[in-house]
Amino acid sequence: METRTPSESRTIVTDLVLPSETNPLNNLFGGELLARMDRAASIAARRHSRRIVVTASVNHVAFNRAVPVGSVVTIEATVSRAFKSSMEIYLDVWIEDRESRSRSKANEAIYTFVAVDDTNRPVEVPCLVPESDLEKERFEAALRRKQLSLVLAGKMDPKDATELKALFIAD
Amino acid sequence: METRTPSESRTIVTDLVLPSETNPLNNLFGGELLARMDRAASIAARRHSRRIVVTASVNHVAFNRAVPVGSVVTIEATVSRAFKSSMEIYLDVWIEDRESRSRSKANEAIYTFVAVDDTNRPVEVPCLVPESDLEKERFEAALRRKQLSLVLAGKMDPKDATELKALFIAD
Amino acid sequence: METRTPSESRTIVTDLVLPSETNPLNNLFGGELLARMDRAASIAARRHSRRIVVTASVNHVAFNRAVPVGSVVTIEATVSRAFKSSMEIYLDVWIEDRESRSRSKANEAIYTFVAVDDTNRPVEVPCLVPESDLEKERFEAALRRKQLSLVLAGKMDPKDATELKALFIAD
Amino acid sequence: METRTPSESRTIVTDLVLPSETNPLNNLFGGELLARMDRAASIAARRHSRRIVVTASVNHVAFNRAVPVGSVVTIEATVSRAFKSSMEIYLDVWIEDRESRSRSKANEAIYTFVAVDDTNRPVEVPCLVPESDLEKERFEAALRRKQLSLVLAGKMDPKDATELKALFIAD
Amino acid sequence: METRTPSESRTIVTDLVLPSETNPLNNLFGGELLARMDRAASIAARRHSRRIVVTASVNHVAFNRAVPVGSVVTIEATVSRAFKSSMEIYLDVWIEDRESRSRSKANEAIYTFVAVDDTNRPVEVPCLVPESDLEKERFEAALRRKQLSLVLAGKMDPKDATELKALFIAD
Amino acid sequence: METRTPSESRTIVTDLVLPSETNPLNNLFGGELLARMDRAASIAARRHSRRIVVTASVNHVAFNRAVPVGSVVTIEATVSRAFKSSMEIYLDVWIEDRESRSRSKANEAIYTFVAVDDTNRPVEVPCLVPESDLEKERFEAALRRKQLSLVLAGKMDPKDATELKALFIAD
Repeated sequence: METRTPSESRTIVTDLVLPSETNPLNNLFGGELLARMDRAASIAARRHSRRIVVTASVNHVAFNRAVPVGSVVTIEATVSRAFKSSMEIYLDVWIEDRESRSRSKANEAIYTFVAVDDTNRPVEVPCLVPESDLEKERFEAALRRKQLSLVLAGKMDPKDATELKALFIAD
Repeated sequence: METRTPSESRTIVTDLVLPSETNPLNNLFGGELLARMDRAASIAARRHSRRIVVTASVNHVAFNRAVPVGSVVTIEATVSRAFKSSMEIYLDVWIEDRESRSRSKANEAIYTFVAVDDTNRPVEVPCLVPESDLEKERFEAALRRKQLSLVLAGKMDPKDATELKALFIAD
Repeated sequence: METRTPSESRTIVTDLVLPSETNPLNNLFGGELLARMDRAASIAARRHSRRIVVTASVNHVAFNRAVPVGSVVTIEATVSRAFKSSMEIYLDVWIEDRESRSRSKANEAIYTFVAVDDTNRPVEVPCLVPESDLEKERFEAALRRKQLSLVLAGKMDPKDATELKALFIAD
Repeated sequence: METRTPSESRTIVTDLVLPSETNPLNNLFGGELLARMDRAASIAARRHSRRIVVTASVNHVAFNRAVPVGSVVTIEATVSRAFKSSMEIYLDVWIEDRESRSRSKANEAIYTFVAVDDTNRPVEVPCLVPESDLEKERFEAALRRKQLSLVLAGKMDPKDATELKALFIAD
Repeated sequence: METRTPSESRTIVTDLVLPSETNPLNNLFGGELLARMDRAASIAARRHSRRIVVTASVNHVAFNRAVPVGSVVTIEATVSRAFKSSMEIYLDVWIEDRESRSRSKANEAIYTFVAVDDTNRPVEVPCLVPESDLEKERFEAALRRKQLSLVLAGKMDPKDATELKALFIAD
Repeated sequence: METRTPSESRTIVTDLVLPSETNPLNNLFGGELLARMDRAASIAARRHSRRIVVTASVNHVAFNRAVPVGSVVTIEATVSRAFKSSMEIYLDVWIEDRESRSRSKANEAIYTFVAVDDTNRPVEVPCLVPESDLEKERFEAALRRKQLSLVLAGKMDPKDATELKALFIAD
């Protein structure tokens, strides 16, 4: 079966925060950022699978820092693990300082997409082979997150979630 | 300390899906739904806390059903548990059939908001006292989700996540 | 013939006023509120008729109070009277105070929608049977407004507008 | 006191109907047209009064013809009568045929705006002196509409609405 | 062959600058003005050719003056010269002062559109016959701009650009 | 004086074409692409100058290929030459094929931005030192384009435009 590396799906979206995209505190409106990340994640999933893709779930988004109007925001979306027909996409969001050009992390998010055919049925996607240390770490954690998601949805018995269980029952 | 019931924060947003809000498959664009839910959740959090509120995290969103253009979509957002200064908001999303007027569940989502003062510092919020069975069930589960979120963020040792642990070590 | 009550069509839309929806005075832009009310009214008309509906006219909208950015606005749209194939929808718009949670009336509006079939031809709609006192009052007034609209459009001789005439020739 | 003619306030807005502005039937969405007319009317009111203006009411909008995607739409807004601090604006909306370039009327609307000072208090506006026959006709009718609006709002006794009364009690 | 005058294609778009259309300096966002001019130019090209038209190029846009939020902006678009199947459109943009109603030039722009048939193939358009002095001057200059554009795109040998050459080799 | 390379300002924006961004032919609306390029170019100019930047002119945009709804579009914006306080930004736009992931050029554009201080006055920007062959070629051509722009604006005598003149008077 075909395999792909994370760098083949990596998608970069750099954009401004205009006044029309803010909340009443003059920071980027949370809903607007969620929408931008959804667009970036869908491109990463499409690049990995070369298929039509649809959002299956948003697994986690942490809003650690407010993003003020006028900021330059960069979203980097990469497939972190591929399952049968679904793909976990890991997103990192940075703001960059205008004068120093140094960038700082504003948010992280995890979305899941499914590849479908023209009749909207799930189709298999290539495996992901992580390369860097960070990619490997996220690849490992993705399995735990998948089990967690199944457990929370009542589709997996907690006792079968071996990866997760290990987290709570060390030694 | 002041307490509030879930029905005091319940927020209903019924709206159409217009062509400008669709993806290329003519269904409601995932990012647009995420943004609408963020708006509804922020109103529920504001009604519970009577404070300025900001999105802290999106904990889970499951896109179970595509929402076609022309649909009438109802989002119902309710505070499911209040912690010190944060609130978990549970959202249910329904589509309604035009001819039968019966409605069916399209999505569920969980967002977390934090109440802040004018200087953007977290402030305490009233406790939530659940009333119905569903409200009680979601209130209980909220604690497990909170621990999970802390564990995943590396801010809590899995061994201390007693609620969660119980899930995996049933005897 | 089938009948329906106003509560069967009642549609509630609660939403924020974000900076992208304001005029240069930082209040909700009039055109944006007109558009939101059109969406809410069309859902109420659709719920009453269970048909495709199109806007026929806006009969009256009074902007009594400016709605500042950051407000929580609730639009409540209810069918106030059904004619052969048209429906009058009455809209009430409230703003709610964040700290006291008391709400105050900001606007009222009256829209008319027509139910159509797939070929865009008008089709009959169920009768409306008002229940509460306010519903009954609006139901009565709707007939006068209908006659007025026909008179103003030159489609009814003022002498035949019996309901209206009574308004001006009280003894 | 200063006077102005209708042509001094006439405002022309010609624009396309793009897919993002349609309803699910692929015609211009009613709410979008209401918003465009509000913008045009506010410019006409501003040109007449040379003041900040705010929407006071929408008195009548008739949607006679659907406006399909791809259309060229022209809105013409003109002050039809000035009262103490308020102005009635009459709007005509046309669609033009691409091949023949002939244009046909799609809608008519009547909006009322109020001129205000920096503290949001109503200020006097110049009188309007109609010139053409159509302008004179609309000027006359504006008084009847004003009385009507006051009667409907319960701010004028129908018996005092002399202009309106005459409409119903012709001998 | 059929001919048309510039006044037959003249298109006027007067609109407000709302907060949702600004950059972080509270002036009209450049991209928004480019989009509005594209809409106006496409209508002028359509009126001249009575055909479907598509943007071929933006040849020049000078942003001479910032346009502050709350401004009334008028875009006037007119076909300045027609070639085989393409048309040059000249746009003038004015801001008007609220109190004096005097208007001042804010921008100028030149766009090129091509007329196409249903299969997207270029079709011939009527000739343009300029009338006023300004129209004649722009008509002449359009040929030089066309040559320039071909030279810059490497589609014309500079030596054959007789009109342009004359500009640089005056004796 | 400080210098910078083109790669220090390179800005990548990858995004989808959603239905709300199309023209009636279901291709990306020209005005929307112009707005997206303006955003990308402003970020490149800001990265080079580390200053507030404003659009000065759009010098050339060629729409060579229609971009259909559902496409993945990548805009790459890079400063191609810096003058005293202005910067020329060269933009390349690609569409990528979903199945082969090969990308093809859709458009090219050239924008000019000016760096300003807080009082909106032009300030000096670092020099640009091109590195690759393509960067060097664009750097050279930028001077000719600058002269051309000045000549067309009547701000430079064609006889002094030495770089341009050479283009037309080859021996």
